[in-house]
Amino acid sequence: MPPAGVPANVSVDVAALIGAARDGNARAVARLVSMVEDASPRLREVMAALAPVTGKAYVIGITGAPGVGKSTSTSALVGALRAAGRRVGVLAVDPSSPFSGGALLGDRVRMQDHALDRGVYIRSMASRGHLGGLAWSTPQAIRVLDAAGCDVVLVETVGVGQSEVEIASAADTTLVLLAPGMGDAIQAAKAGILEIGDVYVVNKADRDGAHQVVRELRNMLALAERVGGDWKPPIVSTVAVRGEGLDDLVKAIDAHRAWLESDGRLADRRRKRAADEIAAIALTELRERFGDLAHDQRLETLAARVVAGETDPYAAADELVAGVTD
Amino acid sequence: MPPAGVPANVSVDVAALIGAARDGNARAVARLVSMVEDASPRLREVMAALAPVTGKAYVIGITGAPGVGKSTSTSALVGALRAAGRRVGVLAVDPSSPFSGGALLGDRVRMQDHALDRGVYIRSMASRGHLGGLAWSTPQAIRVLDAAGCDVVLVETVGVGQSEVEIASAADTTLVLLAPGMGDAIQAAKAGILEIGDVYVVNKADRDGAHQVVRELRNMLALAERVGGDWKPPIVSTVAVRGEGLDDLVKAIDAHRAWLESDGRLADRRRKRAADEIAAIALTELRERFGDLAHDQRLETLAARVVAGETDPYAAADELVAGVTD
Repeated sequence: MPPAGVPANVSVDVAALIGAARDGNARAVARLVSMVEDASPRLREVMAALAPVTGKAYVIGITGAPGVGKSTSTSALVGALRAAGRRVGVLAVDPSSPFSGGALLGDRVRMQDHALDRGVYIRSMASRGHLGGLAWSTPQAIRVLDAAGCDVVLVETVGVGQSEVEIASAADTTLVLLAPGMGDAIQAAKAGILEIGDVYVVNKADRDGAHQVVRELRNMLALAERVGGDWKPPIVSTVAVRGEGLDDLVKAIDAHRAWLESDGRLADRRRKRAADEIAAIALTELRERFGDLAHDQRLETLAARVVAGETDPYAAADELVAGVTD
Repeated sequence: MPPAGVPANVSVDVAALIGAARDGNARAVARLVSMVEDASPRLREVMAALAPVTGKAYVIGITGAPGVGKSTSTSALVGALRAAGRRVGVLAVDPSSPFSGGALLGDRVRMQDHALDRGVYIRSMASRGHLGGLAWSTPQAIRVLDAAGCDVVLVETVGVGQSEVEIASAADTTLVLLAPGMGDAIQAAKAGILEIGDVYVVNKADRDGAHQVVRELRNMLALAERVGGDWKPPIVSTVAVRGEGLDDLVKAIDAHRAWLESDGRLADRRRKRAADEIAAIALTELRERFGDLAHDQRLETLAARVVAGETDPYAAADELVAGVTD
């Protein structure tokens, strides 16, 4: 029985679905990502079943303003990683991404080539919900692709507002893309991306002004306050549309990975990420449970006792809180 | 030993302080209000000790835009209530109030007369913190004045933004003040005060345009969507600076009180208010406790287990939440 085609939230055999995903069934992968995106009632079951079979994928975040060539670079990077024999997953958390069905035919055709490749899973996560919701489900979707055997998961995110920062916290290596004529490096400083990149990519390096962008970026990075110590983010020049500079980019990513893997930095970063994720889920759970209690008979009873002078609001609140985890 | 003069947050005998407040010691009252305002570590002890001796005061909220004569009206109302033999507390939750030390000498002198009257407690709550914090501590300060034997507590609040709505939820009877030439009744509609008043007061009724304000207000109130049913808020015209219309105002307040006290409406309103207060305190407690846990060793351990694939983030969040009420 194929796992795809089963109605949502009905009797899905989660173990069978994960088994099929691990065997390379793309529809099972898609189905699991959908369950994650839709916050299926069985999300917890899915996450519990995925836990023992995840943690192997390396996560690369790709961010940058619209127009810098993010999708073209992602596509080129997929090609380079596939040429090196790695299985690749792509999560496009960007409504303007061609992977989301919203852009240039050329890019779309290019990605369709990858789509026919059994070693690549491509998934848009921009079709529903707001970015906040996407940020929420992205780590879960990464786990699905991880369990499905992807060696590398590329997460392409829209380069505006908070989302770059969020993706930086979800990725092992974060690539920040710039291009000449896109407002240049000064804009990068304003957008706060000088703090989040592990590797900077100046794409469209054949265009006028590319050297200028590299120079300004280098100066600003030298001045930027960066946490996390002694990694000096390299600047790689590429012409992604022609595949130029891709080898340098892969080398820069591998160098960052090697740095992370020394001295336990990767494990530290992933523990920090997991802690943030657990804390966010726990806070949401508390809010939900508390929302229920605010309409609970218990609150009515406590309020009546406060009005009668039998207890005070603080003691009543303590009683209410004590009931939250029942 | 006088309760005032003891350093804050040191060995204060709360029971003795409350006893002194109930015996009419104004400094003990002031000290208790300060403990409430400052969210003293012993706030819970104070609230617990106050609970059995509160619930007798009737709370009147007074709101309206700056310039309508709120403080003058409050002062006149204090006089009228004192003349009727009632003990009165005043909480000025308004930075522009003369009770807060920020306005006309004439008003200040007038209130100083009351200040010499043992049957009146006057307290500004605007000297510290933001309005949100004031909204938080106001119900507690009302309990202090209640315990101190005030029959009526007047809460004067700044007539901008959310605060009128908050004060309406803290008061038994809410007075909304308007005056001619203050932008008139249309502005009242925009400010959302057509929903919250139990009694409307058109002050400065001797000025041009006063009849117009009354007429427009009457028309708009007839059209306004009001919750809580069959009370038709009366419109009272006053010239507070000369004490004109004060008898009518006191009668209107008493009529609303009689209406509230029939069919258990007052008890319902106070239970609703207590429930809101408990819920707000409980949510704050949860946030604080959770904030602690986010820096807890437990979260580190759970994060390491998630990274190792021994558990998933949702199960980890459940464990963390289970620890919140320990």
